Amino acid sequence: MAKNFWLLESASLYKTVKLGLAIKRKIFSKKTPYQKIEIVDSLGFGKVLFIDGLVQTTQADEFIYHEMISHVPLLLHPNPKKVLIIGGGDGGVLREVLKHPVKEAIMVEIDQDVIRACERFMPEISEGAFQNKNAKIIIDDGFKFVKNQKDAFDLIIVDSCDPLGPAKKLFNPEFYKNVYLALKKEGVAVFQSGSTFMQQKELRAFFEKNKSYFPFVRMYLTAIPTYEGGFYGFTLVSKKINPDKEGLAAVEKKFKNLNLKTKYYNPQIHFASFVLPNYIKDYLTSKK
Amino acid sequence: MAKNFWLLESASLYKTVKLGLAIKRKIFSKKTPYQKIEIVDSLGFGKVLFIDGLVQTTQADEFIYHEMISHVPLLLHPNPKKVLIIGGGDGGVLREVLKHPVKEAIMVEIDQDVIRACERFMPEISEGAFQNKNAKIIIDDGFKFVKNQKDAFDLIIVDSCDPLGPAKKLFNPEFYKNVYLALKKEGVAVFQSGSTFMQQKELRAFFEKNKSYFPFVRMYLTAIPTYEGGFYGFTLVSKKINPDKEGLAAVEKKFKNLNLKTKYYNPQIHFASFVLPNYIKDYLTSKK
Repeated sequence: MAKNFWLLESASLYKTVKLGLAIKRKIFSKKTPYQKIEIVDSLGFGKVLFIDGLVQTTQADEFIYHEMISHVPLLLHPNPKKVLIIGGGDGGVLREVLKHPVKEAIMVEIDQDVIRACERFMPEISEGAFQNKNAKIIIDDGFKFVKNQKDAFDLIIVDSCDPLGPAKKLFNPEFYKNVYLALKKEGVAVFQSGSTFMQQKELRAFFEKNKSYFPFVRMYLTAIPTYEGGFYGFTLVSKKINPDKEGLAAVEKKFKNLNLKTKYYNPQIHFASFVLPNYIKDYLTSKK
Repeated sequence: MAKNFWLLESASLYKTVKLGLAIKRKIFSKKTPYQKIEIVDSLGFGKVLFIDGLVQTTQADEFIYHEMISHVPLLLHPNPKKVLIIGGGDGGVLREVLKHPVKEAIMVEIDQDVIRACERFMPEISEGAFQNKNAKIIIDDGFKFVKNQKDAFDLIIVDSCDPLGPAKKLFNPEFYKNVYLALKKEGVAVFQSGSTFMQQKELRAFFEKNKSYFPFVRMYLTAIPTYEGGFYGFTLVSKKINPDKEGLAAVEKKFKNLNLKTKYYNPQIHFASFVLPNYIKDYLTSKK
């Protein structure tokens, strides 16, 4: 029997902390025009997708990220029919979005090889979502795609990689502005925002910038075992719907009517996740 | 200038995942009769205390753990005067407890060398708490100490290491029973409960056992950047006070009257931290 071995992430977004995983075997590795994709089988988290040396998703804990980036905005918006996903090559966000009665879910992923590798080696994540009749997969640069959309989407979910490789453009203020323009007048968008502990300066700047476009900019939190840095943040921006005004009773009713099956999300968590510790509130909103 | 280097934790509580930290230099190392203590200076978290190869606390994020294990029970109890801390050699819990008007805070730590090393190399954590006139430090086995106490404490905080070394006895049902007997009739206790993702079976058993002694057993959550495994749990057990009945307004009033200075804790977080994702609720309470 082969011996397990410890694998330390080869990259570190934060330069100060990395994840070490006990690995059973390497399954797949490919250098694409955009990045290096690797899939391994791990001792504690099932199959794990790495991109450029950083953990992107694992079979065991992917439900936390995918449910929270999807259901919070989908249950906030009164009637999300047209949804755009930027990135999301593993198919997890698409799977969750399609649990809602949306008319069209368009996914724009820059690297077809991510989709191919995940469909082949981690099909449990997309669960056939790529073949759904309401799904449309476009292989393109998300930045460029959004730039050409006006007043087109109820919801945009930015499920990007961290700002190291091709995803760098998605952390550019021009992109946020284009997201604003691509949304309909009741539109909502969500951005994965990384560690709320390690990236305080970046998140503050991101918040400030988005506030110049959107009247409502809010952070909500979860914790993901294989993402370093304590609370993991999502930024929700909204053109018209006030996320603080939507009550628990209304979200509970929608959740029940949709008969959503979730492993993480529930309407109580929806609201609890917007409550911030003092230090996060302070750095996001202090005047200095 | 010396080069930084990556240090992977040498032990793994969970056998599947470890923390890798960028380190500037090693500061202190000692093998005591109980365990190996190491202190290093890190690139992202200031000074870091390791015990038997596992991160225990860091200067940068210790406030999260220490505030949450202390202020939640202290603000739940109507009048906590006599507080017992088991473990807590770095002094962080004692520091937070002494922000409240307690009459006596007794800390029972098995290994004097932990206190000595932390006072010398990480004095920012205890902030002089060991010298406070209301603090009493006892070097003894916490299991044995609690066994000899009856109807003695308003609050017991179990700030133990993980169940690998000398702390193993603190994860024994006999200890929970002794905690019950050591508490006064309105008494409350809190146990650090590790990762709510990695230790599902252990936490379920722990909950079941405590329910046979305490009428109220609840989990509350935080996320700590240098503790692996997503949401970190604390278990709150209570003999008489119902944690669900204490309202936000009451806790807000107490918090304001005490004029508590906190970096993490606030009354909204107090209640939000008791809201559990579905999968945690399921494994803690399902019948099977």
